[in-house]
Formats: sequence, structure tokens, C-alpha cells
Amino acid sequence: MLAEFLGTFVLLLLGAGAVAVAVVGLPGSGRQFVEFGPANWLIIAWGWGLAVVFGVYVAGGVSGAHINPAVTLAFAVRGSLPWRKVLPYWLAQVVGAFAAAALVYACYRWAIDAADAKAGIPRDESLATYSIFATFPAEYFGNSWWGPLLDQIVGTGILLLLICAVIDTRNTAPAANLHPFIIGLVVVVIGLTFGTNAGYAINPARDFGPRLFTFFAGWGDIALPGTFGWFSGYWWIPIVGPLIGGIVGVGVYDLLIKPVITARTRALEEQEKGPATEEP
Amino acid sequence: MLAEFLGTFVLLLLGAGAVAVAVVGLPGSGRQFVEFGPANWLIIAWGWGLAVVFGVYVAGGVSGAHINPAVTLAFAVRGSLPWRKVLPYWLAQVVGAFAAAALVYACYRWAIDAADAKAGIPRDESLATYSIFATFPAEYFGNSWWGPLLDQIVGTGILLLLICAVIDTRNTAPAANLHPFIIGLVVVVIGLTFGTNAGYAINPARDFGPRLFTFFAGWGDIALPGTFGWFSGYWWIPIVGPLIGGIVGVGVYDLLIKPVITARTRALEEQEKGPATEEP
Amino acid sequence: MLAEFLGTFVLLLLGAGAVAVAVVGLPGSGRQFVEFGPANWLIIAWGWGLAVVFGVYVAGGVSGAHINPAVTLAFAVRGSLPWRKVLPYWLAQVVGAFAAAALVYACYRWAIDAADAKAGIPRDESLATYSIFATFPAEYFGNSWWGPLLDQIVGTGILLLLICAVIDTRNTAPAANLHPFIIGLVVVVIGLTFGTNAGYAINPARDFGPRLFTFFAGWGDIALPGTFGWFSGYWWIPIVGPLIGGIVGVGVYDLLIKPVITARTRALEEQEKGPATEEP
Amino acid sequence: MLAEFLGTFVLLLLGAGAVAVAVVGLPGSGRQFVEFGPANWLIIAWGWGLAVVFGVYVAGGVSGAHINPAVTLAFAVRGSLPWRKVLPYWLAQVVGAFAAAALVYACYRWAIDAADAKAGIPRDESLATYSIFATFPAEYFGNSWWGPLLDQIVGTGILLLLICAVIDTRNTAPAANLHPFIIGLVVVVIGLTFGTNAGYAINPARDFGPRLFTFFAGWGDIALPGTFGWFSGYWWIPIVGPLIGGIVGVGVYDLLIKPVITARTRALEEQEKGPATEEP
Repeated sequence: MLAEFLGTFVLLLLGAGAVAVAVVGLPGSGRQFVEFGPANWLIIAWGWGLAVVFGVYVAGGVSGAHINPAVTLAFAVRGSLPWRKVLPYWLAQVVGAFAAAALVYACYRWAIDAADAKAGIPRDESLATYSIFATFPAEYFGNSWWGPLLDQIVGTGILLLLICAVIDTRNTAPAANLHPFIIGLVVVVIGLTFGTNAGYAINPARDFGPRLFTFFAGWGDIALPGTFGWFSGYWWIPIVGPLIGGIVGVGVYDLLIKPVITARTRALEEQEKGPATEEP
Repeated sequence: MLAEFLGTFVLLLLGAGAVAVAVVGLPGSGRQFVEFGPANWLIIAWGWGLAVVFGVYVAGGVSGAHINPAVTLAFAVRGSLPWRKVLPYWLAQVVGAFAAAALVYACYRWAIDAADAKAGIPRDESLATYSIFATFPAEYFGNSWWGPLLDQIVGTGILLLLICAVIDTRNTAPAANLHPFIIGLVVVVIGLTFGTNAGYAINPARDFGPRLFTFFAGWGDIALPGTFGWFSGYWWIPIVGPLIGGIVGVGVYDLLIKPVITARTRALEEQEKGPATEEP
Repeated sequence: MLAEFLGTFVLLLLGAGAVAVAVVGLPGSGRQFVEFGPANWLIIAWGWGLAVVFGVYVAGGVSGAHINPAVTLAFAVRGSLPWRKVLPYWLAQVVGAFAAAALVYACYRWAIDAADAKAGIPRDESLATYSIFATFPAEYFGNSWWGPLLDQIVGTGILLLLICAVIDTRNTAPAANLHPFIIGLVVVVIGLTFGTNAGYAINPARDFGPRLFTFFAGWGDIALPGTFGWFSGYWWIPIVGPLIGGIVGVGVYDLLIKPVITARTRALEEQEKGPATEEP
Repeated sequence: MLAEFLGTFVLLLLGAGAVAVAVVGLPGSGRQFVEFGPANWLIIAWGWGLAVVFGVYVAGGVSGAHINPAVTLAFAVRGSLPWRKVLPYWLAQVVGAFAAAALVYACYRWAIDAADAKAGIPRDESLATYSIFATFPAEYFGNSWWGPLLDQIVGTGILLLLICAVIDTRNTAPAANLHPFIIGLVVVVIGLTFGTNAGYAINPARDFGPRLFTFFAGWGDIALPGTFGWFSGYWWIPIVGPLIGGIVGVGVYDLLIKPVITARTRALEEQEKGPATEEP
């Protein structure tokens, strides 16, 4: 549990830090004025991906480094984690994410104030600075909750499907303890490919911990005009979506790949035992 | 076959997703308006490259993860795949690519509609949103089909040449199951170096499956004025080009590198057996 | 000591070179005029990160490649370096950084002069060219020294926490001598997530050596109007902050992760000795 | 020699291709108009770096993959290559580079013509399209030849110093056949840190082969007004600079690091033989 706390803490510290750099740090650093552009998205995608790399390196040797309630649930469903560990893991993850959000805020409050002042927007209306901490859907979804929910299911499904592939030593799992690096690349690619629809939470703790923090830190129940409140109306989507998506991802792997690999591994083992059956 | 289906599905889900983020997701995400620029090309190149990494990690342990009919054909020509497997592999790859295109569309239809609405273009004239799914040549080629065809041959030739190098354990093939990562970097570099002429399909399934999907999803037989219809006139180039190029790439490796390596490996083995012939 | 000198020399040669490319080289290269934008930050972040990769590859086999006084101090506090080596290491690191700054200046003085001439600013008022060598806080901190100091403590804390994780072979330390690559990625991610507040020195030698060089090379005691002189008033923050932060980072790892891993390792060893206690 | 030919061919095909994408392909691809910006430099830096990765993977198992006359010379000086192989290697490298330039031209001539037409510049005055093939100094060097020469010496010095570190198995050389990847990252970082002064040839074959090609392909003896002809006046700098720099780089490693490592390795071996001398 300490490891899950620290791993999720590192994940959020770096991940939310990446958005802070892209949204308020770099534009306002004062050296030269910098517009938000597609390269900022590269900062965010690589920042979050490498955040996962190091969240896993910190906690991997202790707890297996889920650092994500959707991973914890999916692994429990799969039978590779005892159910009694699920709630404690979840709690540690959310607390770690909340604590990291607070430290990111402590480091970036000058930059946040400067950005909001420059845009002339009070904090509780500033989606730009809110985006450092919690996710929200793209404007084009309007009031639709199905679009962002589908996005979260698909994104987290990919995450778990690929994690299953990358840690399956009977498949082509990377060795030399480089799986944390490769798992981080999974999150880089999800950011580059399914990141803009709804901010790719794909992790209930990553979203809910910091969202709770923003509620107390001045953003309150921020909302776009005509859409649902980000806290009161939207908070459940980056929780429910990932939890469903994670189970879907594990299911796809276990249905389509695992049986073939199991059969092949068994066949190979039998070949080794009985060399009489080798091909001529 | 299931593995080829799932591997190509993952490839297209992430790859087409990267173009969707770069072309409609990021520009329209509403946070801040974002122009298309060279950093979008980095999103596309890294997105497609990492898509290959994980397509190979998913399917590698089962089918060898061709996830590309050009690879399948070239390996059959080379003699490392039975010919009877070629057609089933091809079918699985095209079906996987089609299915992934449908899922990408399901996730990005709001963003696609918003982008087309903003540009004021009906869907069946919108090359921008069409580019999420299928490839087409740069404007400067005009009606020339030789330019894009040559581009596809060269691009796929590089792909197969480098795959041959990277999996040849008598050369310097990466170990520790990191060849999927390195093969993905092959596709990153092809995107950065031969990606803009004709969209670097370098994979008939990657192009034809989603192209078929767009035909039914509202883009129809879209065409630029004065040029050939993208479906009726162009579809064969990203099929024929890669199939030829793949064979060329394997041929170059097997002609220029394989004989030297085979000779050297044999010499080394003989040295080990007969240490009397060692250098003084 | 020679290794620490050369490692820090390589670190600064490449790192300061990256800022030089981003700030004066690329914008003034004359091919096409290039504005400073977020992609320049990617040049800086990857440049510094890869600079660390190769500083560590150069010196790793000899001295362990601290190339950072904060690492040296934290390892001495931790007991993994004899205290008598601390001062010689520090000296070698600062001299290496100073020498590299001089070589970077020798290579980029044409570009520096051209950039200052274009901006119409004399050298001793040009923060842009000063930023190639030494760090300073973002404008929004005003005269606050607590903001940048906290930033340096947090940034270096992350650095040391993650270094501890990545070299702990009982955790998931990368093998195959790839830890220098992974440690470089730590610095990439710190640049992407905590780089813009105060220039992420996170290394007293990296900052003080080049800062000393700029004092003699024409920038003198440069200052923004209304804020403290960068040399006379600010120099101690990127020294004290990293030295504190490094100890904090090691402390967090040794308090939260090390005890659990030690206990688990011991339990595993005992299991191996006494298989009677295995789970049924 | 075939391997050196093919390795340098791959290096130039991808490397020159990266510049082609950044300078004429992406800006003119017609989808949306794209300005040259700092992200184009990332395309070039990663493109060239990955070009090295795969040049080395192709040729590494046969010839050791110098693919660079400066590496060949430095290794001959060092005594790790017989002198009689130097000239044949050089020849194979230059021919490979020339052939690759021709193929890049064949693929990009439409894009080159379109870019020159758009800019309204005849080919033999177009530095932009010339830059796809050969290097030239930044405008701010004026008629100085010392600036670019120093840049080439330093750049190639770094290259060889780091190659020596990365292949020295008594230092921390990467294992699992990942040294081609790490060596490619050396070239990525040189591009990001010493790339804009003079186009980082750091390889006589990489520059001279394609430069020769451009002479015959219509660029002739192109020159900026007031400066030396790029062919008649400048061609020797990216040849002489790298050859000197390579020897300097090897020299620095062999003077500063090799003796310490040799001594330490010897001490360790003796310790293993005589355990009586272990620390109490």
C-alpha cells in the first residue's frame, strides 16, 4: 500500500506537472511568449508516459505497481490479485494522487495565478488551469455523456490489453526489467491517439484525487456554460469508464491471445519431453 | 489468424487514432485553438510507430506479428512462411484493419463532424478527415501514379530490409524481447523520412481495410478536382507498391548481407571446432 | 575524479548546447526564420536528458557517474560514498561544468552575437543568451525566493527518489546496462514537468560552473529590473535547493520503499532456504 | 565493404529523407500548409538519429558498421582496424552515400520542384532544397571558416568519445545488442545540441557523397552572395573537421577514461585471483 501510494504520487506529480508546464509554465515563463500549440501536446503525452514509467519503477518491486484502480480491479477479476486487496489499493492510489496534486499546486500556484490573471478569468471559471489537475470532455461532445464514456472505455481497454501482452512472459514480454519503460510507452501512445477526446484519465485515481483537490483549492464546481458541472455532473465518467474498460481489455486478451499461447506453450513443453514427435 | 487480426486491429486503432488526434482531436478540443503544424507530424509519426510496437507485442508470441500483407508475402517468398498461410493471414489483417477503423470512427465521429462543420466542407469532400483512415498522394504529384508508387516501393523496401536486419540473430538483433520496440522505431523513422509523399501506407491491409470502411461511412469515392478518385483510381497503389517493395527489401538483405553473415558464422563455427587454425 | 570531470563536461557540453540550439542556433541559422515555441522546449528537454544519458555512459564504469553534487551529497548521507570523496567530487564536477561552458561559448559565440544584435540588446542585459549557461526563475515569481527554492527542492527530490528506484536491484532496476538511458529519461521527464519554473538546474555544478563563466564572459551581474541580480542575489538557490532536495529524495525512498523491499527480499531468501514454509 | 556500402546507404536514405520531409515534403504535402518551425528540427534530429540506429543494425554484424570515414580513421589510429581497410571502407561509404542521395532525389523530385517553384527560386540558388543533401554553415558565420570547422571538430569529437564509451564493455556498455540504439541517440543529441551551426555533417561520406550528387543534379556550385561557393569553397570543411574531431574524441577517451578503467579492471581481476588482499 505504501508502494501504491508512492507510485501514484510519482505518477501524478510528474503527469500533472507536465500539463502545468504545457499550460501555464512554458507560456508564462517570461523568457519569450509562447503560444499553446501541438508541441505542447507532445510535452503532455511524453510527460504522462514517462510519469508512468517512473511510477512503475518506484513501486514495481513491491506491489507490482498498479498505480491505477482500473488495473487493480481488472487483475482482481482476472484472479491475479486477491479481492481483499482491492479496496486498500484503491484508497492508497486516490490518497497518493490527492497528495501529489497538492504538491503540484504548491509549486505552480504562482504560474497558475499569472496565467489566470493574463487571461482575465477568475479561478473558478478557468478550464485551462483546471486541466492541470482533472479531465473534461472536448467541447464538441456538447452534453453527450456517451462520447466521453466510450472514449474512456476504449482508452482503458487498450491500456489493459497491452499491459497483459507486455507482462505475459509466454508472449514477447520485454526482459531486462524494461517492462516499466514499455508500459510507459503504452501511455505515451494512448495520449497521442486517444488523448484529446476527454483528456485520457484512463485511471480513476489519477482523475478523482486531483479533482477532489481542485474542489477545495478554488475551482469549485467549475462548468462550461450549457454543459454539466465538471465536478457535480462529470466526475463519475473517468471512474466508471476506466473500470469497465480495464475489464474489457483483460477480457479481449484472455479470450483471443491467452488460449492460443497456452496451447502453444503446452505443445512446446510436450515436444521437449517427447522428442519422438518432432517434425521429420 | 486471431493474433494477426488482433495485432492489425491494435495497429490501426492506435495509428488511425494518432491521425485523428492530429487532424481533428487536438485542433478541435476546445481548450485552446490549435493550428496544424509540424508538431502534428511528430504526433502522427510517433503514434504510428508506437502502434507498430504494440501490434507486435500483442501478436508476436503467437503468429510472429506480421500485421502487414507485404511482410507476409515477403516472408513467404523468402521461404520462412508456408504459402498456404498467406491468404488467411491477409484476410485476418484486412478484417482487423476494417474493424479498427470502425471503432476509431465510433470514438471520433463527434470530432470529425465538428472539424468538417468548422471548415464548411461536406464529408464526401473532406480530405482532412478522410486522411484519418486512408492515404493519398501529396498535391505536387498531380495525376502521376509513378511518384506515389515509387514512394510505396521504397518505403516498404526500407521496412522489410530493416526488419530482416533486426530479427537476424547472426547480425546484431536486439535481445531481451526488445525487437518489437526497435521495429516500431523503423516505422517512426519511415514516417519522419518517407511519410509525406503519399502517407506511408507501406502496408496494404492498413490502407485497404480503412479505405473500404470510409466508402461506406460517408466519404464515398472522394477525389480532388482534376485528380483520380481516391477509391476508384488510387486504391491499388498502396497495395501493389508495398507488395513489390517488401520483396525488394528482403531481396536486398538476402543478396548483400546474408551471404557474408552466413560465411562469417560458418567460419566462426569452424574456428571453434578446430582451434588449430587460430591466428598466431 | 577525472571521470566526474569528464562526465560533467559531457553533461554541460550537450545540455548547454541544447539551449544554445533552441535559443540562438536554430532561430538564427538563416535557412528560414524560426520563432521560439513549445517545440524548442522539447529540444531543450530531450537535449538535457540525453546529455545525462551520455554523461553517465562516459563516467559510469569509473566513478559511478554522479556528475551532480546533489547526488554526491545524498549518497554520502546515505552511506554509499565515503565522506572524504565529497569535496574532490564536487570540485571535479564544477571544473568540468565550467570548462564545458567555455567550449560551448567558443562554438556558439557567433550565434550569440547575432541573436543579441538582432534583439538590439547588449550582452549584459540579454537574459535569452544568458539562459544558455545558467538558470533563473520565471518572471511570475517576482522577488520571491521561496518559489524557486521549493521548485529546486522538489525537482531534485524527484531526481534522487527515481535514481534510488532505478539502481535498486531488489526493486525493478533495468538490466543490460540500460540504467544510464533510464536515468536520462528521469531528467527528460523532470524537464517536461518541473522545468519551466526555474530552469531545472537540479544540480549545483551544472548551474554554478557556467554561471561563473558568464560572469567573466561579458554577462556580468545581469538582472531583470526590479528583481535580484542573477549572480549576486540568486546564485545560491540552485545550489542549496538541490542539495536539500537530494537528501529529501533519498530519504523518501529509504523510508517508504527500502524497508518493504528489504523485508520482502529477506522473506524470499528464507523461503528458499526453508521450503517447508511454502504456501500449500 | 558491402556492409559499409549498405549501412551508409541506409543512413543517407533515411537521414536525407528526414530533411526532405522537413523542408519540402511536409510543407508542400497539400493537406494543410505548414510553416517551417522548431518541430521540423525535431523531425530532422530524430530522423538522422534513427537513420544511424538502422545503418548500424544493418551493417553491425558484418563490418562493425562504421558508416563514417571519421570513425574508420579514428579506429585505425586507435589500432582497432587494420590500416589497409581504411581506403576501401571510405570508398564504400562515399559510394553508398552518393547512391542514397540519388534515390532520395528520385523520390522527392516532385516535392523539390514544387518547393522551389513556390519560393520562386531556380534550383541552383535554392539553399533550402540543397540542404536536403549537403551541409553549409549558418549565415552568422559570414566568411569565417574557423567557426564551422571548430563546430565539426567538436561535434565529431563528441560522437567518437561517446561511441568509445558505449562500446567499452569494461565501462557501462549497453548489452542485449542495444548499442546501435544508444549510438543512434548519440546522433540525436548531437543534432539537438550541435546541429544548427553547420548542419552537423560529422561524417565526411555523409556530406561529400550527396554534395557530389547535387553538383550533377542541377544545384551546381551554389553559393550565398558574399560567401564562398558551397561546393568549390566549403566542401573540405565537413571532411577535414570530422577526421580531426574523430581522432580528438578517441584521444580524450583513451587518455582520461581508458587508463583508469584498465587499472580498475586489472585490480578486480587480481582481487579475484588473490582473495587474501580483500578489505577487512
